[in-house]
Amino acid sequence: MTPGPTEIPERVREALARPIANPDVNPAFLDTYRSLTADLAAVYSTEKDIVVLGGEGVLGLETAVASTIESGDRVLCVANGLYGEYFAEFVASQDGDPVLCSFPADEPIDPNAVREAIEKAARDGEAFAAATFVHCETPTGTINDLETVLGHCREAGVLTIVDAVSSLGGAPVPMDETDLCIGASQKCFSAPPGLTTLAVSEAAWERIEATDARGLYTDLEPWRDIETTGEFPYTHLVSNCYGLAEAVSMLREEGLADVFERHEASAKRCRELGAEIGLDTDAEEPLCSPTVTAFEVDSALAIQGVLHEEHDILVGTGLADRENDLLRIGHMGYNADVEHVERTMDALEDVLDGSDDWDTGF
Amino acid sequence: MTPGPTEIPERVREALARPIANPDVNPAFLDTYRSLTADLAAVYSTEKDIVVLGGEGVLGLETAVASTIESGDRVLCVANGLYGEYFAEFVASQDGDPVLCSFPADEPIDPNAVREAIEKAARDGEAFAAATFVHCETPTGTINDLETVLGHCREAGVLTIVDAVSSLGGAPVPMDETDLCIGASQKCFSAPPGLTTLAVSEAAWERIEATDARGLYTDLEPWRDIETTGEFPYTHLVSNCYGLAEAVSMLREEGLADVFERHEASAKRCRELGAEIGLDTDAEEPLCSPTVTAFEVDSALAIQGVLHEEHDILVGTGLADRENDLLRIGHMGYNADVEHVERTMDALEDVLDGSDDWDTGF
Repeated sequence: MTPGPTEIPERVREALARPIANPDVNPAFLDTYRSLTADLAAVYSTEKDIVVLGGEGVLGLETAVASTIESGDRVLCVANGLYGEYFAEFVASQDGDPVLCSFPADEPIDPNAVREAIEKAARDGEAFAAATFVHCETPTGTINDLETVLGHCREAGVLTIVDAVSSLGGAPVPMDETDLCIGASQKCFSAPPGLTTLAVSEAAWERIEATDARGLYTDLEPWRDIETTGEFPYTHLVSNCYGLAEAVSMLREEGLADVFERHEASAKRCRELGAEIGLDTDAEEPLCSPTVTAFEVDSALAIQGVLHEEHDILVGTGLADRENDLLRIGHMGYNADVEHVERTMDALEDVLDGSDDWDTGF
Repeated sequence: MTPGPTEIPERVREALARPIANPDVNPAFLDTYRSLTADLAAVYSTEKDIVVLGGEGVLGLETAVASTIESGDRVLCVANGLYGEYFAEFVASQDGDPVLCSFPADEPIDPNAVREAIEKAARDGEAFAAATFVHCETPTGTINDLETVLGHCREAGVLTIVDAVSSLGGAPVPMDETDLCIGASQKCFSAPPGLTTLAVSEAAWERIEATDARGLYTDLEPWRDIETTGEFPYTHLVSNCYGLAEAVSMLREEGLADVFERHEASAKRCRELGAEIGLDTDAEEPLCSPTVTAFEVDSALAIQGVLHEEHDILVGTGLADRENDLLRIGHMGYNADVEHVERTMDALEDVLDGSDDWDTGF
């Protein structure tokens, strides 16, 4: 019950164990890949191109930046949490010039403030080449409503990059005004880590072609016509593709509306049961994510340890300097299930009731 | 029977299908990783550090270059085949300055010529920061004896990078004088594509720390103390690690000497049976690789197609402008088996005998 990697259902694990078709030589692999991206487009709810890269979600985030940002490009990194701030590191690592536009972790992103930052930069002759956003701030269980602010970027001609790693497949992701939207296999899809997905707009492709990318593994350019040519820049992760394809098929069989509703119901039940035992969420509604809930606690590490040891349930703690202050319950993908949530919260109540007995003196 | 990805044995496929321990939170994953690198060190036959990265072999090759080469660094790319030449692209993509030292594809690398190139560059005040080599040139089935030339590099203080992607686990790889030696999961290990392995010398680590690497996914620096800290720079590919760990265990159970002998015997039988039906290898002994044999043919694509269609056996063709001139039989990993080779060569004989009936007019 961590916020990813999530438990992998048996059907997906069986798909991983299939004998493989050689992805370099056997044309059957291109059919697999085409079918996977078509199914993913339905999950993204977009007609934009979908690309599946062979690596963890961090590869997708870095690739989006590395393929579109050149040395010296100014990039507005909009953040109301750690992951938003991390985007500045991806930009800096490409010799771009990141400008943080930060909001407190418990407050929504203010579209007007972002618009003003974009307009001021343009007036000053320092226009932004791109802006980055995080849809679900996994570290605090915050989901951002990005439609308006993405619209402002589009009007100003600023390329938009959205990290939807921990929401894609569990909640509708903002697509209309998004140029690059990144997902990963191990979150709401409940496939193993190893594949990262990108939805790529026509404007993004144009930028990618105009950008002199450094690096090969993080360059999207060779992927533009991949479904026609089949000339993958490396041997694709064929077993992982089988697993993700099965996982996405399961979402489509269930129906996306039902999948999203299942996530919402699990999140709601998690917050209700938390409230019953006196736990506050870090994010306030409507910022509470349907995929992960962060409760404010003392001694998160101790609680995590006892839950794992005594109840065989693994949950997340906070990150960085909030490591011990937040307990994070993942209800994403296969684990987005009211019964799973109830079992977890029952166990948590039990652990908190017994906290007097802990060595840590909770 | 292609030169990779190779067929995945059932034990490895079952390992892929195991429920996973969360690699970010559950300390069990670090134990898995440590045990995997210890087993890999035995396959490399080295006491150098082993790193396992989450991506295909191309990621390993690019990471070796990106972590050690800075803008303007001169790198000697020693080549007697396509893959040797490709190293120049990795160097150029990092804004390094590649200098090709090329030998014909059917001739060995001349250590003296390489030494002279290194010495001349030093005299001219343009010393090489590194030199790159390919152990097994998969496109032509050529294995290079690199010990002497690597020794020359060491004497001259030139960092050495060796692509052993298609030999590691199937033949002894040159390690004593090698600073970075790259392998991949889908070749002689017969695990699925998705992991790349690097053996890293102390001199390489020093260079890595002194290098201002661009990019995060292709930077080795965070991996130096990974087995102590467990702070992986991204969620590791845990299912793939289970698969590779099982595959490496199988090699160790068989015994490395027997594994290498099995590859040699398969290669020898492949060449013998080829000679019996009038096929010449592209490489001459002792340059013939124990992991892949390239036969000179006309109409390789047609032969490949008929073999696949009529006999359900998939082999490789040549690459680039030799696509139709070479037929490549992989006998690596699980497929390094005299019976597999005999079945393949019987089928090939049958296909060649019936070549009058082909549409292509072989």
